[in-house]
Amino acid sequence: MKIILLSGGSGKRLWPLSNNARSKQFLKVLQDEEGSSESMIQRIYRQIRKSLPDAEVLVTSSEAQGDSVRRQLGDQVENVLEPSRRDTYPAILLSGAYLLDRGQMDEGEVIAVLPVDPYVEQDYFEKLHVMEQALCESGADLCLLGISPTYPSEKYGYITGGTAADKPYGHVKSYVEKPDLQTAQRLVGGGAYWNGGVFVLRASFVRKLIEKEIGEVSFERLYAQYASLPYTSFDYEVTEKSTSAVFVTYDGEWNDLGTWNTLTAKMREPDGGFVIRGENCHNTHIINELEIPVVALGLRDTVVVASADGILVSDKHASSYMKPYVEQIHNRPMYEKRQWGEYRVLDFAQCRHGKENSLTKHLYVEAGRSISYQKHDLRDEVWTIIDGEGLFLLDGEVREVRRGDVLYIAKGRRHAMATREGVDFIEVQMGTELVEEDIERFPWDWGSLLRPEEGPESDT
Amino acid sequence: MKIILLSGGSGKRLWPLSNNARSKQFLKVLQDEEGSSESMIQRIYRQIRKSLPDAEVLVTSSEAQGDSVRRQLGDQVENVLEPSRRDTYPAILLSGAYLLDRGQMDEGEVIAVLPVDPYVEQDYFEKLHVMEQALCESGADLCLLGISPTYPSEKYGYITGGTAADKPYGHVKSYVEKPDLQTAQRLVGGGAYWNGGVFVLRASFVRKLIEKEIGEVSFERLYAQYASLPYTSFDYEVTEKSTSAVFVTYDGEWNDLGTWNTLTAKMREPDGGFVIRGENCHNTHIINELEIPVVALGLRDTVVVASADGILVSDKHASSYMKPYVEQIHNRPMYEKRQWGEYRVLDFAQCRHGKENSLTKHLYVEAGRSISYQKHDLRDEVWTIIDGEGLFLLDGEVREVRRGDVLYIAKGRRHAMATREGVDFIEVQMGTELVEEDIERFPWDWGSLLRPEEGPESDT
Repeated sequence: MKIILLSGGSGKRLWPLSNNARSKQFLKVLQDEEGSSESMIQRIYRQIRKSLPDAEVLVTSSEAQGDSVRRQLGDQVENVLEPSRRDTYPAILLSGAYLLDRGQMDEGEVIAVLPVDPYVEQDYFEKLHVMEQALCESGADLCLLGISPTYPSEKYGYITGGTAADKPYGHVKSYVEKPDLQTAQRLVGGGAYWNGGVFVLRASFVRKLIEKEIGEVSFERLYAQYASLPYTSFDYEVTEKSTSAVFVTYDGEWNDLGTWNTLTAKMREPDGGFVIRGENCHNTHIINELEIPVVALGLRDTVVVASADGILVSDKHASSYMKPYVEQIHNRPMYEKRQWGEYRVLDFAQCRHGKENSLTKHLYVEAGRSISYQKHDLRDEVWTIIDGEGLFLLDGEVREVRRGDVLYIAKGRRHAMATREGVDFIEVQMGTELVEEDIERFPWDWGSLLRPEEGPESDT
Repeated sequence: MKIILLSGGSGKRLWPLSNNARSKQFLKVLQDEEGSSESMIQRIYRQIRKSLPDAEVLVTSSEAQGDSVRRQLGDQVENVLEPSRRDTYPAILLSGAYLLDRGQMDEGEVIAVLPVDPYVEQDYFEKLHVMEQALCESGADLCLLGISPTYPSEKYGYITGGTAADKPYGHVKSYVEKPDLQTAQRLVGGGAYWNGGVFVLRASFVRKLIEKEIGEVSFERLYAQYASLPYTSFDYEVTEKSTSAVFVTYDGEWNDLGTWNTLTAKMREPDGGFVIRGENCHNTHIINELEIPVVALGLRDTVVVASADGILVSDKHASSYMKPYVEQIHNRPMYEKRQWGEYRVLDFAQCRHGKENSLTKHLYVEAGRSISYQKHDLRDEVWTIIDGEGLFLLDGEVREVRRGDVLYIAKGRRHAMATREGVDFIEVQMGTELVEEDIERFPWDWGSLLRPEEGPESDT
């Protein structure tokens, strides 16, 4: 079995901890069995490994999420980067094409597609074996996972159809995606199941879907034509139209953790970061990623979250409705983890006269990493090294730099930084347009320069 | 009449907008008659000027408040800076010594002492005329202002004694400072008044108090011996013991605005700064001085205040009890207004190895101002000019600097910055102890360099 993990969107309902580069599935707010903090994607991956130790796992994500995927799951997974954000139908086709075209997948194998964000028990992953078996026995194209509904939601798809007593699966009689409230009530009353967004598919079925769109199974062509694929969900495009689907049911815990209300219920500690709270707070969670303190007094059923991007103060229930308010904010991300390290925006200033701007950042490059060799056309930069040592590359010349050194990088000059031990610097950008897009990258091989220096061997 | 305005302490109950350098009386959260924003001290001063246009006004404050006093009241008031924070008794003696010794005050004149923070009507200041008249007619040493109590508070002093129908004042029969609840209930039931903290005193009486402490009326000696004066309030030391006091009553609005609960009730706008609120917030005030947004949803009776020093989220009533929580915070102030301009701390970082630290600030020097000529023994500094032009002084040599210039100031080197048009720079400090105390100041006269350059005269 091959597994496709669909890494979803930014999760605006978990603002200000989630932004385009830092989606909710990467927030390390949960705890693993040993009590160490882990993210949703790390939890899901750990659970998959437990039930399916040998399955190949492919993570499909946006380009902006690529760094986070590698940082949190390492090299043990493959990562397909969508060229643009579409919906689950194009994403599943792209991932399928990768497996079929690049991975030389056996046509007899099955592909399991899983969303990355549900909070579930281990039994959920054991169901993947049952779903594979159901597909083989029934000869169907796809197998769904039916979840026992807890209320007549208008957000989910509904599966109807009974399961025979002697079989671990049933045939889908009808499928209704996102019904109105009245229909949802009737469906729940009639014993329907929610569609949990898990699909087990025959490789040959995925092949047919891809061929329908672009005529052949080519990852390269699908990647190039990605923006022209239908902007729609797999449920609307495939599940709802299918006449050959079976389903398996799961009745354990199933929680989407997509809002602060649901996520805080799974957090072991009510506070994170520099928080001072009075004794008179009840059912209140406070997460503070800033260096300044949060003082909380007399709060009830409240969530307070402070990050470099902003501050949320919300009644827990009301936090589910934050999306339209957060969509009014168009600030640039103020904090990002990257593959080479991380940065935080400290200051942005517009000049009093003219159109010039300044932006100040604190950057940290991790030991053994480097920032890409780059130039900017619209800004000068001043770097002041405040911690560690690095290798500074300017127009092809490398020199060692350390705490106290000040580097002036005029617009148009090619530059990079690498470090064996880790380096921090304050960057002051000055120019008219201070955007991440003003960058041109060039190849550069640091080679052996980046490996730690070897000391004399010790006899003891 | 001479007026002493006692500028009180930092007002921990209005954290995070108040800190040692930025006390509550300087917060511009009120509105004047034209709708412009004003602070408590500006409001009091405006009201004094209306009732007593010619009275000389002296503001007594801590050294840290000196910049704020000059910034908000300008040169129209004199400012006595206490060498250390004591209580109202030493503060009144020091101010009195200044008036008697330096100001050559007439012994027949009276001195009115007023706290800086009550929110009152204009009639409160008209009462100062009545109090002066009461002192003359009665021959008493001091005249108090009695406030009609609204509840049996344990925080105030109580004045008992009736007023005759034909006189605008009464003789104080007894004075009880901060009674227990039972006594307070009895006093309120018996028609006692709160002591409003306003005193009108004979100059000769103040002279006697000073002579009792140091033997002579010398501002210089009192200033030098300030730390050895009794650390006590004027109410305990003088009012409670006095056998010759009269009082005048005031029954208009009298509100101390010392907590977020009382202050927000006087704010015309519920929000300040970058705030996005859902429609479902009730009786909620949000003040945001940060550049990142605050999103508020579903809050009731809540106050949210975000500043560079920290974030308060509190039930309005509970905010009155914040003092012990805020006293746990020992961070340095992150934002300060100074006489030369202002600065904001952007970043603080400890080196991963060793004891070195780094601190990054954004400083703004106002047009026509300069930073004192100074040197630091424990840190190097890198200044990157990001806006405007300035005059940079290094070890006695002045040169013009502008946006884009980078200045390296090694420890031990004397430096200063002045500007005709205003200048912004990012300062990176690097050293072992990054404290405001690591500074030695030197005299320097910028002379005509700081005046705006004169252009050719125009005929039109």
